[in-house]
Amino acid sequence: MEIKKIIEEIVANKQEAGGIKQVYYVACGGSYGAFYPAKTFLEKEAKEVKVGLYTSNEFVHNTPKAFGENSVLVVASHKGNTPETVKAAELGRTAGVPVIALTWVEDSPITEQADYVVKYTFGDGKDIAREKTMKALMTAVEVLNQTEGYEQYDKFLDGVGKIDRIVKNACKHVEKRALAFAKNHKDDSVIYTMASGAGYGAAYMQSICIFMEMQWINSSSIHSGEYFHGPFEITDAEIPFVIQVSEGSTRPLDERALKFLNRYTQRVEVLDAKDLGLSTIDSSVVDYFNHSLFNNVYPVYNQALAIERAHPLTTRRYMWKVEY
Amino acid sequence: MEIKKIIEEIVANKQEAGGIKQVYYVACGGSYGAFYPAKTFLEKEAKEVKVGLYTSNEFVHNTPKAFGENSVLVVASHKGNTPETVKAAELGRTAGVPVIALTWVEDSPITEQADYVVKYTFGDGKDIAREKTMKALMTAVEVLNQTEGYEQYDKFLDGVGKIDRIVKNACKHVEKRALAFAKNHKDDSVIYTMASGAGYGAAYMQSICIFMEMQWINSSSIHSGEYFHGPFEITDAEIPFVIQVSEGSTRPLDERALKFLNRYTQRVEVLDAKDLGLSTIDSSVVDYFNHSLFNNVYPVYNQALAIERAHPLTTRRYMWKVEY
Repeated sequence: MEIKKIIEEIVANKQEAGGIKQVYYVACGGSYGAFYPAKTFLEKEAKEVKVGLYTSNEFVHNTPKAFGENSVLVVASHKGNTPETVKAAELGRTAGVPVIALTWVEDSPITEQADYVVKYTFGDGKDIAREKTMKALMTAVEVLNQTEGYEQYDKFLDGVGKIDRIVKNACKHVEKRALAFAKNHKDDSVIYTMASGAGYGAAYMQSICIFMEMQWINSSSIHSGEYFHGPFEITDAEIPFVIQVSEGSTRPLDERALKFLNRYTQRVEVLDAKDLGLSTIDSSVVDYFNHSLFNNVYPVYNQALAIERAHPLTTRRYMWKVEY
Repeated sequence: MEIKKIIEEIVANKQEAGGIKQVYYVACGGSYGAFYPAKTFLEKEAKEVKVGLYTSNEFVHNTPKAFGENSVLVVASHKGNTPETVKAAELGRTAGVPVIALTWVEDSPITEQADYVVKYTFGDGKDIAREKTMKALMTAVEVLNQTEGYEQYDKFLDGVGKIDRIVKNACKHVEKRALAFAKNHKDDSVIYTMASGAGYGAAYMQSICIFMEMQWINSSSIHSGEYFHGPFEITDAEIPFVIQVSEGSTRPLDERALKFLNRYTQRVEVLDAKDLGLSTIDSSVVDYFNHSLFNNVYPVYNQALAIERAHPLTTRRYMWKVEY
């Protein structure tokens, strides 16, 4: 079912009980990161609707008291079998909360617990407008538009129509830089990412899913607003950073951090959303598209890095191999 | 003015406009971390009241649309002069939103922008029940109790009455371990922290304010629920972790991560809230006291580490030295 229709149905079903008052986004790791733009969207744009973003096991063990008849639960699991996320969905089902499950595998444990299943695109050549992050964002946009109203709704949809081409051009644009980055960073034991705003989730994902998980490189995703309040003391000429300079309201935070980095370290890789073509999206909604851009440009770097380091992105020591 | 009275006054003033509907906690670095328990408290316990936690410059540049007549803004700045936080307070003042400023220096730029100034305890021998984290938590507890009601209010206050002694005993308890930790970790270039629940802010602070800022050691604070979804692949026999095993609802998450660490690495420092005496606080409220415990036990380790590494905690390369 189309997301617009799903939300229409939920809104109709909840009319008597007072409508949608809380939306909870619950997932783990990369899926958690993919929910970040949806969370920041409602946090920024909604006057009434509450939003929560939780890693699944935190939600399961520490369920908010508001979770109930006015709630919607959105979960995501790539293969539909993340045990903690399946458990969270089950919690929703038991509580009578409508569960929307975003997944790549339609017939999976999580779809059994879901009222609505949304399949997203994935893999080479995927349509960016229909991948996990954008589907999650659309649940947030539809909830807002169908409850409080969202003035920029049409502009947002216009952005959705543009993002695929922007991303694909950007990926080509960074190909050479990515090769240079890979050569330059092949022996690093630590690489930091930095970001702000709705795009921060992409930096988080790059840190935990790529550098730490797939390359065994130490990492942390630093908020560019927080950088000056502790983390910047780690900076020296040799410590490498990848910084997302976003387009939209928090760009000044990223630019300030970049200015500092350019002064005190030699090793900064800049992903600039302006340079990468994001500015063709209307400024009133552009914030929410940073994630999709950065998150899809990183893989160009990651492929190159994996080859240069002779460490395939699929190598694991624990996942799929030991019990935990 | 006492926090209870401050909230009473705000509630009375907002009665006509519909009461308090949003509480925003806004600060940078260590003060941001200190707000974490207050944020998780309202996120978990409140049915109606919305809560937001922002690093100051993100709030200033990306102000939520709900910020207005039904909002309360709580800011914190240790010396009252953090420019981004002063700016956030100014934003509140301009918007007619009551601003509560938590600070150690009563006569400072931030107090000029505040409607209410709350001074907290700080330094050797301070009363833990009256320090920044607890004052922030009390704003959350009072807002909830005075709007929706908070069933565990008395039990919470009972916990407040116990925390100072618990922390002081715990600090003595870890003295020897802290010396051993310092010797064992003096040459490390990376140390991870791990935590879950309302105590996560303490792990964040230890990572960014101590390891990174004051010791120039690479670090990241990993959520123990997220650990298995990426970060755990970084684990090997030599990578050091400090894990907070919390008391309360998310303890199973920490225990699971600890079990894994004990199997695959030799170098785990365990801060166990049970072992450190937190369990005398009622189980219905104990979650919110983990932060104060861990955050005040870390300094015992940090003093020892600084001496062993001959790197005083006051050493900086940039802060107070260059413009940024």
